[in-house]
Amino acid sequence: MRTHFDKQLNKLNDELIEMGSMIEKAIEHTIKALVTQDIDLAKYVIDSDEQINRQERDIESLCLKLLLQQQPVARDLRQISSALKMITDMERIGDHASDISEIIVTLLKREESYIKHLDHIQSMAKETSVMLVGSVDAFVNRNQLQAAAVIEKDDVVDDLFRKVQSELVQLIHEDPNCGEQATDLLMIAKYFERIGDHATNISEWVIFSLTGEHVHGKLIPEEQTQ
Amino acid sequence: MRTHFDKQLNKLNDELIEMGSMIEKAIEHTIKALVTQDIDLAKYVIDSDEQINRQERDIESLCLKLLLQQQPVARDLRQISSALKMITDMERIGDHASDISEIIVTLLKREESYIKHLDHIQSMAKETSVMLVGSVDAFVNRNQLQAAAVIEKDDVVDDLFRKVQSELVQLIHEDPNCGEQATDLLMIAKYFERIGDHATNISEWVIFSLTGEHVHGKLIPEEQTQ
Repeated sequence: MRTHFDKQLNKLNDELIEMGSMIEKAIEHTIKALVTQDIDLAKYVIDSDEQINRQERDIESLCLKLLLQQQPVARDLRQISSALKMITDMERIGDHASDISEIIVTLLKREESYIKHLDHIQSMAKETSVMLVGSVDAFVNRNQLQAAAVIEKDDVVDDLFRKVQSELVQLIHEDPNCGEQATDLLMIAKYFERIGDHATNISEWVIFSLTGEHVHGKLIPEEQTQ
Repeated sequence: MRTHFDKQLNKLNDELIEMGSMIEKAIEHTIKALVTQDIDLAKYVIDSDEQINRQERDIESLCLKLLLQQQPVARDLRQISSALKMITDMERIGDHASDISEIIVTLLKREESYIKHLDHIQSMAKETSVMLVGSVDAFVNRNQLQAAAVIEKDDVVDDLFRKVQSELVQLIHEDPNCGEQATDLLMIAKYFERIGDHATNISEWVIFSLTGEHVHGKLIPEEQTQ
């Protein structure tokens, strides 16, 4: 029984890695679409979001099957219930990549040149992608330190957001005519900041799955922790 | 067989109305939390999002059961596959209410007074709520005109967004110190604009379910339309 259960847990890990990889690609394509002004690539990200949603459903079914059939306890139970929580955050990251791509489509249709260099926004994309991969790896490798490193990285993303924000606010202050594009870029940066938040949540669930302790006061419904 | 199928379709309608009502309440609480500066109410909306997600899963299961067991064709098939699509948009509206509430929590923690009157944002909340209810009603009543009215209303929401956006740009132009709060309010307005987009999608699915025709170039996978 235990061997079969282990196999199922391995399958769960594989599916989570696959979902992580799908989202990583979505982030990568999103930022490439912005930088290379590629409207088709942005549309591709929007269309691909459904696959990420489908992957979430599949993993959810697998988790529920494991919970029902195996009636796991303690650490195994925490691992599966954490996976259930993690995929919600992963799915939201996919949504935000799609949200960003929708703004890119609007932005590129106006055919203006960018009012600011996109370096910081590109860095946000890179850092959030590293956070996402790190959090999924931490779950699979049951590595608490790796999860903690992801949580620390969120400050880097928040700092980058504040830089983009203050640059754009300054640009609007100097010339309100650039307000429309500035607010589009501001929203894109905000969505990347939210992606960082969700990657942080994922790592918090990893730590919960390993230690049984909630960091940052997160709550799990009672019935899933007992 | 048909009677049982009709009963199941009625159940589907009831569940959709219930989900619509849950989201309507989420929007209502969100805007109330913003206007009355009620941080607890904002947190309540965030916590309640899980119930909306659960309702989506339940409706999805019901739709899949109907598709598998009853093998419906033509209009019945379109109705069920449209319901499957609609709940994705409904769930995203719930997410956005939660997103807005998260921003409200951050905003209220800074304890500043609002830099602008919230009239237009309140109007956005009201209009999107009306759109949501209208689109669910249109589905249940199989009323194409009602669905078309919702789609038309989206221009009102988009106009309100542009008003909020230009007001905030003007405020930043005059005083860059209000940039942080202006960004938060901009994001809140953006999420309401997205809620309007999702309500529009829902109505487009209603029209598809009734006529078999896609409005605004929406695509449904081939296997669901045949």
